[in-house]
Amino acid sequence: MNYSYLENKELGEALAYYKSKLQMEGFSLGTETADVPSALDRITSSAVYARISSPHYNASAMDGIAVNAHDTFGATDTTPVVLKKGKGYEVVDTGDPLPDGRDAVIMVEDVIDIDEDTVRIIAAAAPWQHIRQVGEDLCQDEMVVPSNTRIEPSTMGAMLAGGISQVEVWKLPRVGIIPTGDEIVAPKADPLPGEILEFNSTIFSAMVRRWGGIPVTYPIVPDRYELIKGALEKAVSECDIVILNAGSSAGRDDYSSMAIGELGEVHVHGIAIKPGKPTILGTIYGKPVIGVPGYPVSGIIVLEKIVKEILETVIKSPLRTYPKIRAVLSRRLMSTLKYEEYVRMKLGRVGGKLIATPLSRGAGVVSSFVKADALFTVPMNTEGIEASEEIELELLKTEKEIENTLVMTGSHDPLIDVAYDLMRKRNPERYVSSSHVGSMGGIMAIKRGEAHVAGIHLLDEETGEYNRAYIEKYLKGQDIVRIKGVKRSQGLMIAKGNPLGLKGVEDLSRDGLRYVNRQKGSGTRILLDYLLKNGTIDRDSIYGYDREELTHMSVAIQVATGSADCGMGIFSAAKIYGLDFIPICDEEYDFIAPAEYMDSPIIRDFLGIIKSGEFRDKLMELGGYSTEGCGTIL
Amino acid sequence: MNYSYLENKELGEALAYYKSKLQMEGFSLGTETADVPSALDRITSSAVYARISSPHYNASAMDGIAVNAHDTFGATDTTPVVLKKGKGYEVVDTGDPLPDGRDAVIMVEDVIDIDEDTVRIIAAAAPWQHIRQVGEDLCQDEMVVPSNTRIEPSTMGAMLAGGISQVEVWKLPRVGIIPTGDEIVAPKADPLPGEILEFNSTIFSAMVRRWGGIPVTYPIVPDRYELIKGALEKAVSECDIVILNAGSSAGRDDYSSMAIGELGEVHVHGIAIKPGKPTILGTIYGKPVIGVPGYPVSGIIVLEKIVKEILETVIKSPLRTYPKIRAVLSRRLMSTLKYEEYVRMKLGRVGGKLIATPLSRGAGVVSSFVKADALFTVPMNTEGIEASEEIELELLKTEKEIENTLVMTGSHDPLIDVAYDLMRKRNPERYVSSSHVGSMGGIMAIKRGEAHVAGIHLLDEETGEYNRAYIEKYLKGQDIVRIKGVKRSQGLMIAKGNPLGLKGVEDLSRDGLRYVNRQKGSGTRILLDYLLKNGTIDRDSIYGYDREELTHMSVAIQVATGSADCGMGIFSAAKIYGLDFIPICDEEYDFIAPAEYMDSPIIRDFLGIIKSGEFRDKLMELGGYSTEGCGTIL
Repeated sequence: MNYSYLENKELGEALAYYKSKLQMEGFSLGTETADVPSALDRITSSAVYARISSPHYNASAMDGIAVNAHDTFGATDTTPVVLKKGKGYEVVDTGDPLPDGRDAVIMVEDVIDIDEDTVRIIAAAAPWQHIRQVGEDLCQDEMVVPSNTRIEPSTMGAMLAGGISQVEVWKLPRVGIIPTGDEIVAPKADPLPGEILEFNSTIFSAMVRRWGGIPVTYPIVPDRYELIKGALEKAVSECDIVILNAGSSAGRDDYSSMAIGELGEVHVHGIAIKPGKPTILGTIYGKPVIGVPGYPVSGIIVLEKIVKEILETVIKSPLRTYPKIRAVLSRRLMSTLKYEEYVRMKLGRVGGKLIATPLSRGAGVVSSFVKADALFTVPMNTEGIEASEEIELELLKTEKEIENTLVMTGSHDPLIDVAYDLMRKRNPERYVSSSHVGSMGGIMAIKRGEAHVAGIHLLDEETGEYNRAYIEKYLKGQDIVRIKGVKRSQGLMIAKGNPLGLKGVEDLSRDGLRYVNRQKGSGTRILLDYLLKNGTIDRDSIYGYDREELTHMSVAIQVATGSADCGMGIFSAAKIYGLDFIPICDEEYDFIAPAEYMDSPIIRDFLGIIKSGEFRDKLMELGGYSTEGCGTIL
Repeated sequence: MNYSYLENKELGEALAYYKSKLQMEGFSLGTETADVPSALDRITSSAVYARISSPHYNASAMDGIAVNAHDTFGATDTTPVVLKKGKGYEVVDTGDPLPDGRDAVIMVEDVIDIDEDTVRIIAAAAPWQHIRQVGEDLCQDEMVVPSNTRIEPSTMGAMLAGGISQVEVWKLPRVGIIPTGDEIVAPKADPLPGEILEFNSTIFSAMVRRWGGIPVTYPIVPDRYELIKGALEKAVSECDIVILNAGSSAGRDDYSSMAIGELGEVHVHGIAIKPGKPTILGTIYGKPVIGVPGYPVSGIIVLEKIVKEILETVIKSPLRTYPKIRAVLSRRLMSTLKYEEYVRMKLGRVGGKLIATPLSRGAGVVSSFVKADALFTVPMNTEGIEASEEIELELLKTEKEIENTLVMTGSHDPLIDVAYDLMRKRNPERYVSSSHVGSMGGIMAIKRGEAHVAGIHLLDEETGEYNRAYIEKYLKGQDIVRIKGVKRSQGLMIAKGNPLGLKGVEDLSRDGLRYVNRQKGSGTRILLDYLLKNGTIDRDSIYGYDREELTHMSVAIQVATGSADCGMGIFSAAKIYGLDFIPICDEEYDFIAPAEYMDSPIIRDFLGIIKSGEFRDKLMELGGYSTEGCGTIL
């Protein structure tokens, strides 16, 4: 098996080196002429000068009469001036040219009609009053905008006002995107095992479009050297920049760097960023060709941190950057010394504090970018950042969105998504940030002041009662409100038809049975442990006890796909995947919230939703819930 | 002459009332299905759930071998485990499906090859290590995004990963734009006096496009009631929102409100905003129809403050708002009690202070929006704001742009635009904010710390020397650097061929001659006054002495269009408009800057430009300049 070692160049250094190479090789876009009405957001390649003045004639700025100011001097209430039409004045509307010999306009409200041809004036007009003089807006040959300027709606208006119908602009950069890989297939609804859906080109195209480029996506190229080389040649001849999206394995990357190297030059291969390390920065015929790793998150990062920077140098106008924001890290974040690492983060404003929580760091987890509010760059040579440290992040959403976000944590249940959707339906300004840290995680987040509300289902072994004892024990001294949630059916999720003939928890230690568990601190894990203890079953005898999943759905899916035989979870999750279900108990899933937030609009919206008929109907559809009293304060 | 009095409803009240009417009449957009790859920035109309899991099979996350973790337990350096291909392992690449019965992957770097079919393992594999489990990114039936959510590039990726190829979204709002007016003509380069160029529809279309709507511009409708009514009926039948862009005179507006009232209902006519007062808020068949006044600045304000708000209610996703920023007002700003007023402002960061300066408030001055960095809302019932007060503004540019802006003030000269264009050519991150307040205004701005650099040309009557005496007198105690600028030819600008046979300043008091002057405090005005005094000419004897223009170009243009016979100014301005020129003197136009800024990159860039060959060449083209020593420190 072959394995190639790459460089590990620091990002800033790699970019500076690459940019200097591009400049030496003369990388730039040409210019073209655009019609002004379709030039929105284009960038001027030279200064634009008005060809005519605006207004191009002296115009009345009011409805009224045009006069010679001289004639009105001395006019007052007691010594009015009387003027005759034609000889002393003309009627003018706003925009009318000033009649020859007139040098002032008196507005209609100040004119007293005597008869059809005679008016009385009781105040003197100042010369040039109420006249829009030639060039008030723009003088002929005045600069409207300089070079390298983005054309805004008002710029388009000013150009047309200045008699300019066409404008010289930089060409839009064409960005070629070549997906490669034998296993890669176009997106479809029923892929086979081993087929990998090719959606990177869709993400990249959308990013390029946002930056004002024209994405050109080429067909998927199989992992064969000659084909990759051919595709590169075609793309380089048709585009200004080329992205070669290769598989992320070290072996495959070699085709990319070999092909780029043969047709042009590889300047950098291997950058000290995570994800994104195997990135290639090359040129072919003076055009940038960038080898981007295959995982979608790596790809997004490399486009954001590298491709965007390269585009900016030729677009000649700064692209939008994300504003910086400071927040408190909610939990410890480990990092590697060798790389600058980019971590997607959730943000939440809870009681004045802005809390940042890391999302999944998997390079394949594109949904982490869907959920992300911010991006955190962990510098190189950092082992990790401690919880409660203040960090600076790039804000991907608006601050307003963050302020309007309900931060929900604790135990996972599909009802959270249902509530979120209903909240957005009622009020599109409302967002929900939910993280599934288990019931005990939820209690701890409330204790640390990091969430508005937490969902919990914690069985007290002594009383058999849910939740109350835990709140009293762990949140002693805090003013906490318990909100009645739902009853839901917990049990064992097993394959359709129960092929192993399982009856209950007592079967879990059966030889050959593959269990899948929930994480420590989750209510479901605590329930299992309680049941095992009651049944005196040794947890070490259960194969897969240590295999942990974070949600009911991810447990159910392991059973549904046959990679596990059994897992504990709620009925609604089993139902979604058509699994059989052995009910064990009905548990109480409640919400807790600090009393201080109960009157906030965000919690009131939430209570309104969980008390609503729509919410109950949706849970009935999911199945296994009883919603009696949901939303009442306990 | 007829004059109709309008309501004067406070904006917030008018909007709330109008929105309630629209809701009652059922105003909303329908939904449609979009292909995911073309759904960027569309808004979901219902929650989107994954149809398949991502990944949809258990996949190797590394290049290496797939094993049964059990088989490797106990493996160490000294007690290695040896595995045979087929029986004990299979070779897998990243993304390959996990072979049946395997539950761990060992990465290639940790595998020691013995022969083609045999490997040695020296560390135990943990079950499920290096495996991307089914649903790691998304579980089937998990919510990808809720309702009313903007589709981002990553959302498109997540949807395709979840087997979703089409998505239900809100339709894009079609916004009809009807320009009206007898005097209105399509933009052209050679309009006749009285013809008004119709560029509002271009500005409005671009704004609508920025907000995600589809603009539909209709042909210009003459000011005839039946034609306006017909155009409205057609637009309402084809669009979701209609903008009727009427002339701004009170008389003409009546057609708009009459036609809207006859076809539907006028809910509000007259809003307490300036500009924008004659706005009409109406409905026809439940669709909003908004009568927008004719001046471009009024139109932009009404679209920004009203049309955008109405669009937002049906787009179901907040549109971008401008961030707020606090700045110090540079000069007194008068306002009216009756209206909320919107003033375009320039911003500049000078020595740590953010300074806001009002731009032209003319409703026809669309170039004020091109130059504006921020918009300041003066509340109703305010008479004015004093200089040096701190105010809050809406920031139209980015903070970075403001930080990179050279704030230049003082005397006007076309060379400022030349320098600005060259600066942007060299470095597209650099901006120049210039305001023409005359030489004395420039000195005062430097004194107050409100500009980085000022251009001045001030003749000391006693010594005949330029600039030095003024700096010593007005900037005593401040550490000021004087930078040599240019020599330029000042004189009288007169019509081509000198039809009045003027010879010099002594002719200015000639009977019937119409002079146009510069504003008080400008170097050119001071020069004229000096010449008048020397020639013992009474300024009151000059017709037009009080007619003030702010730039050489606007003086020249009054002479060029025949609304004045003579004005004093520089040769380059006269040359632009093909005027004759009677030279009077060569004056020294220098720059002054506080010493503390001399090392800032922004001033260094500026000095680099004015010392450059390109700059000199451009000034030679303009004519009347001598650039010897330009940019040297005096």
